[in-house]
Amino acid sequence: MSDEAKFISALRALGTHPGARGLADDAAVFEGLVFTHDMLAQGIHYLPTDPPQDVAWKLLAVNLSDLAAKGATPLAVLMGYCLSDDQEWDRQFVIGLKMGLDHFNVALLGGDTVRLPHAAPRVLGLTAIGRAGAVVPSRGGAQIGDGVFVTGTIGDAGLGLKVARGEADCPVLRDAYRRPMPQVAAGQVLAPLVSAMMDVSDGVLIDAQRMALASGIAIAIDLDAIPLSDAYRALGGENQAARLVAVTAGDDYQLLFTSSALPPNLNCAITRIGAVIAGHGVQLHDADGAIVLPHRLGWEH
Amino acid sequence: MSDEAKFISALRALGTHPGARGLADDAAVFEGLVFTHDMLAQGIHYLPTDPPQDVAWKLLAVNLSDLAAKGATPLAVLMGYCLSDDQEWDRQFVIGLKMGLDHFNVALLGGDTVRLPHAAPRVLGLTAIGRAGAVVPSRGGAQIGDGVFVTGTIGDAGLGLKVARGEADCPVLRDAYRRPMPQVAAGQVLAPLVSAMMDVSDGVLIDAQRMALASGIAIAIDLDAIPLSDAYRALGGENQAARLVAVTAGDDYQLLFTSSALPPNLNCAITRIGAVIAGHGVQLHDADGAIVLPHRLGWEH
Repeated sequence: MSDEAKFISALRALGTHPGARGLADDAAVFEGLVFTHDMLAQGIHYLPTDPPQDVAWKLLAVNLSDLAAKGATPLAVLMGYCLSDDQEWDRQFVIGLKMGLDHFNVALLGGDTVRLPHAAPRVLGLTAIGRAGAVVPSRGGAQIGDGVFVTGTIGDAGLGLKVARGEADCPVLRDAYRRPMPQVAAGQVLAPLVSAMMDVSDGVLIDAQRMALASGIAIAIDLDAIPLSDAYRALGGENQAARLVAVTAGDDYQLLFTSSALPPNLNCAITRIGAVIAGHGVQLHDADGAIVLPHRLGWEH
Repeated sequence: MSDEAKFISALRALGTHPGARGLADDAAVFEGLVFTHDMLAQGIHYLPTDPPQDVAWKLLAVNLSDLAAKGATPLAVLMGYCLSDDQEWDRQFVIGLKMGLDHFNVALLGGDTVRLPHAAPRVLGLTAIGRAGAVVPSRGGAQIGDGVFVTGTIGDAGLGLKVARGEADCPVLRDAYRRPMPQVAAGQVLAPLVSAMMDVSDGVLIDAQRMALASGIAIAIDLDAIPLSDAYRALGGENQAARLVAVTAGDDYQLLFTSSALPPNLNCAITRIGAVIAGHGVQLHDADGAIVLPHRLGWEH
């Protein structure tokens, strides 16, 4: 067990309130509201060269994605901000934050700022508050026989990171990395219809494994069924290797869910990528049969 | 205007929801709940040599102190945590966190962890959620003619910082710095009785000035009336210079409030330290007359 896994395990022992969901879900449910708190650290969750307006967007988006995965309606946020030596960066961040707050119709309720020593990496924290719907799905309800689905396309942000690093050129993919779009509306429609739901933040395989563990079942994923965007196919290809890159890349912020029925038509694409079966963890196959799982299933914090 | 002041001013323009209170109060009021988010940064808000159990306590205490200042009942927290290279530090932090959660009867609802690069200063964030009482006092309601009061004693944590740095020896004062005690019960009793209330986190003078600015009045403080603990008097003295040190030191986490009546007997000491008068900002005097304000009124972030 890694140090971080040990630490999180020790923390989880403290999350005894039922609304905390054992600190093992995307968000907590408390007083009719849904709460999440995610951080972005410079050089870990975003590149020092990413535009500050995009970093502000991402800070909002990754937290609203957790609310989306619970079908909640975003209401408000509180922010913890580390000031830099770069006033222009801070100024641009606020502009980006305002655009994000306006776009998602979310109120900035409060927060704190701290000035770190010179050259210390910036750490940004956000608590997002949403209104709970009638059902707040967890990761733990997947049932044998359910289909496994994702919204949108997979892997774009992973390739987009390479673009942002200057290793390739494709603005659409770069923006998928820098300005993810939380699936808020889809989450609200899906929440009452799913048996389990979470967002794909660390990679389809690792997140599916987490859902399988939480649900006490196995998830079998058909690699051929993974939805790839045209931009992904053009830059990254679509053979097995390319698809393995897509399902182990982080930052998709799509929704992963299980359901016994085919979900309704939504404003976003929905693709069936597999099935819930008896067993443990995640399994992978394509038309040619079983595929050995890659050593790294996704982004491990 | 400092860079941070400029940044906060730009942020405040985004805090347009009435519950955000212009991002100028200790906490926000939203959906019958009170919210605050304060951060602790290593080397800024605590010493690298402070015991991790105490750092966990302080992270909780400084946030619950904001809830106390609004008369709220602490319910739950979400935490953003930066892992270190020091597993034992992390382990001790969790032990301290559990003690604090149990002491204040507060649920850990969620949060996030991130591993920073080697030697980066640790940044800890906490969002605290409380139940709002019938009245949630702001900083902005002080009325001319009101008395100005503080709970407890002033300056102990300021001297305690010197003790924690090894510059003096006094465990009681050191603990006042490391393990502040938010005045939750007092805040709940006082909330319906006060015209304005806030916690003293950055120093009596600077915080009184903030209350005066928010209320559009002046606060006249009698330096002779500032309550000093026996430990403070023994180590720091009680002459004018010693009292100026006390009223410009941070980390008291006592309550500062204004009221037209003498507040009731509480479980903690309450001392009248001045009066609300016409004018702007904070004024200082003692038995010998007016005192020129020190250049530094308190801890400026």
